[in-house]
Amino acid sequence: MQIDDLQYLLGMAGTVAFAATAVAAVAPKGIDLFGATVMGVITAIGGGTIRDVILDVPVFWASDLNYIWVAMFASMLAFLANKLMTHGQVYRSMLYLDALGVSMFAIQATHKGIELPFALPLGPLILGIITAIGGGLIRDTLAGNQTLLMRNELYAVPVTIGCIGYLILMHVSPESAVINGACCMLLIFFLRAAAIHWNLRVPGWLLTKTTQP
Amino acid sequence: MQIDDLQYLLGMAGTVAFAATAVAAVAPKGIDLFGATVMGVITAIGGGTIRDVILDVPVFWASDLNYIWVAMFASMLAFLANKLMTHGQVYRSMLYLDALGVSMFAIQATHKGIELPFALPLGPLILGIITAIGGGLIRDTLAGNQTLLMRNELYAVPVTIGCIGYLILMHVSPESAVINGACCMLLIFFLRAAAIHWNLRVPGWLLTKTTQP
Amino acid sequence: MQIDDLQYLLGMAGTVAFAATAVAAVAPKGIDLFGATVMGVITAIGGGTIRDVILDVPVFWASDLNYIWVAMFASMLAFLANKLMTHGQVYRSMLYLDALGVSMFAIQATHKGIELPFALPLGPLILGIITAIGGGLIRDTLAGNQTLLMRNELYAVPVTIGCIGYLILMHVSPESAVINGACCMLLIFFLRAAAIHWNLRVPGWLLTKTTQP
Repeated sequence: MQIDDLQYLLGMAGTVAFAATAVAAVAPKGIDLFGATVMGVITAIGGGTIRDVILDVPVFWASDLNYIWVAMFASMLAFLANKLMTHGQVYRSMLYLDALGVSMFAIQATHKGIELPFALPLGPLILGIITAIGGGLIRDTLAGNQTLLMRNELYAVPVTIGCIGYLILMHVSPESAVINGACCMLLIFFLRAAAIHWNLRVPGWLLTKTTQP
Repeated sequence: MQIDDLQYLLGMAGTVAFAATAVAAVAPKGIDLFGATVMGVITAIGGGTIRDVILDVPVFWASDLNYIWVAMFASMLAFLANKLMTHGQVYRSMLYLDALGVSMFAIQATHKGIELPFALPLGPLILGIITAIGGGLIRDTLAGNQTLLMRNELYAVPVTIGCIGYLILMHVSPESAVINGACCMLLIFFLRAAAIHWNLRVPGWLLTKTTQP
Repeated sequence: MQIDDLQYLLGMAGTVAFAATAVAAVAPKGIDLFGATVMGVITAIGGGTIRDVILDVPVFWASDLNYIWVAMFASMLAFLANKLMTHGQVYRSMLYLDALGVSMFAIQATHKGIELPFALPLGPLILGIITAIGGGLIRDTLAGNQTLLMRNELYAVPVTIGCIGYLILMHVSPESAVINGACCMLLIFFLRAAAIHWNLRVPGWLLTKTTQP
């Protein structure tokens, strides 16, 4: 019960983070309160919605509207914060919260894929990646920003490593899902936090062009 | 029976409007007849298709292909009209027809959400907004135009007001769906028409940047 | 049995082609190995996934992960090839393979629509077009490239002609699906190959603007 509570709390924290970073990401282009809220909600629930549509299960927010309410209020607060604070301050601190959200959502989706089970072994990995980056891809597309796939950021790579790790751990010891999940969440979070902190990017020899854009 | 007929007629008028404004919106970039038709059809059925996929019900146009036929012919006519008339004339008159379509589709989708029922009370509102603006978002994305979420137009706001109004009216007097729907459709239409006529935009203090882009 | 094998082989060839051309299409913008792989996989399975979601059937790759594996390795090889060869060489030869993939996927999807049956007569045609161009539209959108709907290329037109041809042939002689399919696949392939070879574009009078962009 306590673990479910913690998971739920982390899910809500992730929702807050996704919504708030979405607003911070589009704010420099000049967006209104309504557009910001729609953008925040789409980003927060987008990845999970695509996952549920592919799995052909009811969308997760239909049975728990708290995800929508939380995303709405977080977006509005982020809109206000963007009016009051300088953009850099807000955005930087949001990135770490976003890293927490990503790690949470990625492992949750991978777990959902293992439990069903859906198209093992690749299926849960695909679900994890879609859930983690889907909302952000929709956000960047709707905002006319470069999507993260083109930015050579270490964003999806930590997610992929963590999800593969979880798949392996669940294969080795399927009974200890909680510990496995916690370890892989932390792995994703710290890899992503390191990428934010040291501004790490994909090395040049792993790029089709050697100059960073 | 007569009310169903009227509703059907309005739905078709909305389809014509969505398809034709889509073609008018992408025409200045230089599109061919085939691309224009695909764009028109996607815009006309896109929002409703996303709604039905989220609701996990069969897509609405599968059981009534008239939606597709009408969208196809409207797109082709709009293509021709764009060759013959000046762009401004066509587009301006289309905007009012589009406002009618938006008001119709928004209330129809909200009603569908209440009837099912789907994730009350927020669910029907989300469906109404998705159905009204979804097709336009896909159109702008595929055409490489700025999406309406970033344009500070009063487009989604009238839709939201009307859908919330319908939810409240249906809570107060669920037996008078027809009158409730008609009132809220007119509300959306007139708010949107006013925004078009006086070129109203979201006020500056509701923007993250005070200068309009 | 042999025909199923051939069909499967063609499907895999199409998957390779879609993944590899996707990587080649985004490579000039500077993408990393991971982004390239995600882009390749999304392009290869995107159109078919939208088709299956609209049909409300399980996504095709869930029951046969070879589509994902093949798309992944083809993307990685294409990434390597883009580092080693000049871009023009790779891309040009890929276009013909892509034409094969398109023709295969379009007829396959149309056939699926006829068999179900789904919204005859327009339904299978829509499925054919979505499956053939859906992945490419997602790819161009995520990469920030102009989508093919705006490029006046003869890409979707050959697909449409072939799919309509298949619908007519299947109406006339439904028992000879294999021959019908082969003919229409070849028709799409040769029309598309001709468009690539002679760099054919949509004629000016079928454009909203007479100057090519």
